[in-house]
Amino acid sequence: MLYFASDYQEGAHPAIIRRLTETNLLKSPGYGTDDFCDSAREKIRTACGCSGAEVHFLSGGTQANALVIAALLHPWQGVIAADTGHISTHEAGAIEAGGHKVLTLPHSLGKISARAVLEMCDIWENDANHDHMVMPGMVYLSQPTEYGTMYSLNELKEMRSVCDRFGLKLYIDGARLAYALAACQNDVTLPDLARLCDVFYIGGTKCGALLGEAVVVPKPELLPHFFTFIKQRGALLAKGRVLGIQFDELFRDGFYFSIGSEAVRLADRIRNILKRHGYRLAFDSPTNQIFVVLDNHEMARLNDKLTFSFWEKLDDEHTIVRLATSWSTSEYDVQELEELMT
Amino acid sequence: MLYFASDYQEGAHPAIIRRLTETNLLKSPGYGTDDFCDSAREKIRTACGCSGAEVHFLSGGTQANALVIAALLHPWQGVIAADTGHISTHEAGAIEAGGHKVLTLPHSLGKISARAVLEMCDIWENDANHDHMVMPGMVYLSQPTEYGTMYSLNELKEMRSVCDRFGLKLYIDGARLAYALAACQNDVTLPDLARLCDVFYIGGTKCGALLGEAVVVPKPELLPHFFTFIKQRGALLAKGRVLGIQFDELFRDGFYFSIGSEAVRLADRIRNILKRHGYRLAFDSPTNQIFVVLDNHEMARLNDKLTFSFWEKLDDEHTIVRLATSWSTSEYDVQELEELMT
Amino acid sequence: MLYFASDYQEGAHPAIIRRLTETNLLKSPGYGTDDFCDSAREKIRTACGCSGAEVHFLSGGTQANALVIAALLHPWQGVIAADTGHISTHEAGAIEAGGHKVLTLPHSLGKISARAVLEMCDIWENDANHDHMVMPGMVYLSQPTEYGTMYSLNELKEMRSVCDRFGLKLYIDGARLAYALAACQNDVTLPDLARLCDVFYIGGTKCGALLGEAVVVPKPELLPHFFTFIKQRGALLAKGRVLGIQFDELFRDGFYFSIGSEAVRLADRIRNILKRHGYRLAFDSPTNQIFVVLDNHEMARLNDKLTFSFWEKLDDEHTIVRLATSWSTSEYDVQELEELMT
Amino acid sequence: MLYFASDYQEGAHPAIIRRLTETNLLKSPGYGTDDFCDSAREKIRTACGCSGAEVHFLSGGTQANALVIAALLHPWQGVIAADTGHISTHEAGAIEAGGHKVLTLPHSLGKISARAVLEMCDIWENDANHDHMVMPGMVYLSQPTEYGTMYSLNELKEMRSVCDRFGLKLYIDGARLAYALAACQNDVTLPDLARLCDVFYIGGTKCGALLGEAVVVPKPELLPHFFTFIKQRGALLAKGRVLGIQFDELFRDGFYFSIGSEAVRLADRIRNILKRHGYRLAFDSPTNQIFVVLDNHEMARLNDKLTFSFWEKLDDEHTIVRLATSWSTSEYDVQELEELMT
Repeated sequence: MLYFASDYQEGAHPAIIRRLTETNLLKSPGYGTDDFCDSAREKIRTACGCSGAEVHFLSGGTQANALVIAALLHPWQGVIAADTGHISTHEAGAIEAGGHKVLTLPHSLGKISARAVLEMCDIWENDANHDHMVMPGMVYLSQPTEYGTMYSLNELKEMRSVCDRFGLKLYIDGARLAYALAACQNDVTLPDLARLCDVFYIGGTKCGALLGEAVVVPKPELLPHFFTFIKQRGALLAKGRVLGIQFDELFRDGFYFSIGSEAVRLADRIRNILKRHGYRLAFDSPTNQIFVVLDNHEMARLNDKLTFSFWEKLDDEHTIVRLATSWSTSEYDVQELEELMT
Repeated sequence: MLYFASDYQEGAHPAIIRRLTETNLLKSPGYGTDDFCDSAREKIRTACGCSGAEVHFLSGGTQANALVIAALLHPWQGVIAADTGHISTHEAGAIEAGGHKVLTLPHSLGKISARAVLEMCDIWENDANHDHMVMPGMVYLSQPTEYGTMYSLNELKEMRSVCDRFGLKLYIDGARLAYALAACQNDVTLPDLARLCDVFYIGGTKCGALLGEAVVVPKPELLPHFFTFIKQRGALLAKGRVLGIQFDELFRDGFYFSIGSEAVRLADRIRNILKRHGYRLAFDSPTNQIFVVLDNHEMARLNDKLTFSFWEKLDDEHTIVRLATSWSTSEYDVQELEELMT
Repeated sequence: MLYFASDYQEGAHPAIIRRLTETNLLKSPGYGTDDFCDSAREKIRTACGCSGAEVHFLSGGTQANALVIAALLHPWQGVIAADTGHISTHEAGAIEAGGHKVLTLPHSLGKISARAVLEMCDIWENDANHDHMVMPGMVYLSQPTEYGTMYSLNELKEMRSVCDRFGLKLYIDGARLAYALAACQNDVTLPDLARLCDVFYIGGTKCGALLGEAVVVPKPELLPHFFTFIKQRGALLAKGRVLGIQFDELFRDGFYFSIGSEAVRLADRIRNILKRHGYRLAFDSPTNQIFVVLDNHEMARLNDKLTFSFWEKLDDEHTIVRLATSWSTSEYDVQELEELMT
Repeated sequence: MLYFASDYQEGAHPAIIRRLTETNLLKSPGYGTDDFCDSAREKIRTACGCSGAEVHFLSGGTQANALVIAALLHPWQGVIAADTGHISTHEAGAIEAGGHKVLTLPHSLGKISARAVLEMCDIWENDANHDHMVMPGMVYLSQPTEYGTMYSLNELKEMRSVCDRFGLKLYIDGARLAYALAACQNDVTLPDLARLCDVFYIGGTKCGALLGEAVVVPKPELLPHFFTFIKQRGALLAKGRVLGIQFDELFRDGFYFSIGSEAVRLADRIRNILKRHGYRLAFDSPTNQIFVVLDNHEMARLNDKLTFSFWEKLDDEHTIVRLATSWSTSEYDVQELEELMT
């Protein structure tokens, strides 16, 4: 069986497991107040070119989204997101459970435009009844998006400018950020994110860690007492070092970036192979996720040789499926896939 | 330096790290639907003598408490707990953030009695205004308590009987359950807990795991759709196996019990040593936590040789401090401690 | 100035004010436990042909919606509503503040179809990831809708049948129910609502009361301890009689129905007048709200002679405005309007 | 039967009912944006000597407490209150339903001292684990208290000074404020409250109105978008004028104060009568509530001649009961009571 169903189907990158093993018996205080966490935070601040940033480690993406959004919004505000955004669809209503409406905009390959956000805010501002309505309070983007697509630096600058005009916070969900940073056409760096966002998170779970996401807050005064908020929401690990050690490893010598670039390189190869062999890609995604159209026969044939994710039914004859690469994907896997898809 | 400050100051028991390493490259589906989790669940069901139980893995104790209590209570109900209960004091208002009042009772060495619960419910029932008041809906106990003390089987049976009389749910926080199970005077087994509680959790983080708590629901119909609830509250790990693998190891061949009993054996030895050398124990705690009274000179002398936890100031001259043993405590540590305290 | 801006621009129907005055010095216990409330409840039960129903009096429509929906839904569920539903647009996120997502469907003149609900539930059921998604838990309808349109008995029966199939609760917002009950083409009675809905409310504020809505719960076991829930959400009036007296008057000798039918009769006349004088109605609404298309000149001309509500901009030249009749509208007002619009 | 059970057992003061009747047919816009509300707000600002204050009208005391406290506190904060405070006991967990812990202090006749608040904050500040604990964020007082007692100006100044020292908000629940303002020994004026509190409310329901409380916010920047928050929590009346008209009447020519002083004068007479006839007052309460000790025979004898409230059982032989005066109490009622109690 060939495994391309997701980027979280194993444990951690072996280097991370090794580091957890090596440090295992060292003593440290709890709750993320240890030296491993401090070292990881410092490395992340450096990578983001933002020496004043606060960095908080959390366990997963939905947790990061739920906490950051609940902490940034006022009770009378909602968060603008693509209708395909993870918070809009696959977080079981986590944002609403925190008290806030997700104000959805139609997506274009997973993305929303600064113009669409502007129009939504404009409508709110000009509605004579807007004091009876949810006020847009922030923008949620994912980089890369759920469609594996990316925002360009220009697009983010435009979004920032609309946010400034309407007093919106800008938050980016980087569950798979390593793969965006590594994509050929990417022009958005971590320092760009730190400069343009109010908060963003650097995904660990889907980029080589056992678990863990690093929430970066360039201007910490935006999230006062966030430590206590994390504790209150049940998201503070007693052994906070479990996350610190992993991020310390991920941000040592550019490791996070090389994890991303190797996975994207192989994904690019797969895209080429698929095209060469006459497969149709559903849309262009430059990161570690590959969206390919299969007809029913092909689906049936591959089903017991290859794991993939169902994406959506295109028509009675065709389905879009998703393949994903990660640190665990090897050249050999790609060769086997090529043989399989010939 | 000698480290006795807590039972979560290292990584995981080496056997667990080893198991995480060995399984690291095996493929599995996400979100706790993998074979590791299934195997761990089965072992826990067997250990609890409860083949119909549902077992959910969560990341920490506050998370487990917050989710279980929010899921079990109706909006108009509160949870009865000792005023020293973890949910009453050190969870940053997690229960209230979930919408519920903690109805506190005065503790006796961390414990509350069935009679006190009965009286509280009686008062509520007989108050003509009780429809304007928070209705007691469940009882929260910790086993062992925050004072390292334990409920006996008889005490739990009495509590269950009061719960039945007033329609209360009974929930036990087992953050350090391994140490209660292993204590000499303990007469409460996992099957007892499964029979007497509506829900309880078996602590991993403070009993040898990197992180993780196993929530046991003997009658699963009490927590319908709990998977989705976990997801919504940001508590579902994409790599759920991280928890499953650890609990599979902890419940292989009685490992969880031997972790507990080794730590308690060393704690008992320390208690004896301390008494022999004229130290006063603040109160009798039969599990892995030792509460000793130090005078100011002694505190100052030990401060740079030994890590311990501040418990409470007794008077101007004396302080109660807590020492804790765990899987990581060795005979050698105990000897060094003896030398230090002579 | 002629006033047609809304149906809540005065105090109460004079008969209600009179009754409040007459009863003013009588003594009663608080919190809705008085004889006025009991009498009103009994009259409403009779009018609904549902002797077992529980009736709760609340102060306003958003309050009623927020409380009923929060009480009926499980935490993992959301409520299906038209994208134009009051809870979707003009309640400032009250449903989300209660923890639940509003699952919107495109409206057709304010209505949604049983088929659309069925399809939404079908998609949820068949989505392999649905445990990560908000589960549809109930349907919210308004009768009449925000567009002044109505569901027919057949449409409600179909909706009930879809609800039964998927285990959904059915809830109807009757803020302007008097006007639906009185509309010529209406075939839905109060007993029909009591039979088909899980909960609905009979609007007072917009149908002649000073304030007040009567929440009807045909099967009270669906909302246990709702009194305490009302108290907890700050919705219990100390002088609950203020609401009871009004509803007792509204349901004496068919008064509620005659308020509705007089307002609808005048609205029908206005619709005829407008059509006769060449005005275009934006859409057909058979209740007390009239939606008429005005061009810019006409708007400007009427602006200081007539109050109306802005509904929506149709194009650069035209606007839809809303006129509303109520118990306070007189024949004389209609004549003046006719003169104005000629 | 003589009625002294509460101060909310009739409708409204006849002058208020008359004003509601007189204004009934006047037209106004909805949601509290009308001239009646504006006029009432202006009169309240004048009475408070605070021209910059914002005034919001709500329907009841629990609603006011729940909304103000939820709006003033950060998520990681709790509210300090007497253990006998209304929010601690008789609001069905409304504060916790809003996400916050009530941090109770032992009361002394319903009051808490600045020193006790200071000590609680001190303990929090000096606890090394305080980031795991609920942070005190505000103080809740009631004036008069649930025991009919009052804070002196000096006590409030001391409380303000402790609040300033620890960054706490100060909020006063004035459900029965008219009676405190009118008490002989009172030295706290409305301008004092406006100067010393962050927010307070002037009770209407228990001081002569049908329903309604006026929330005064001396520095409106403390509660931004409170209108939308009110709407979201279901507390905005469509016919907001119902509250505005009443408060406009209550604050016309010192009417609110004369309602209070007449009720207190009669309460003082009753207290004298009771003492003269050998009854024991349970404690000294200088406002409209009288707490008298009855033995069992007396209780039985009075039970079908007089309505009163049960307060608490003193011992097997004695009970404390509460009598309350209000605008509806007459000299004649007091005479009858005297005859009854002789």
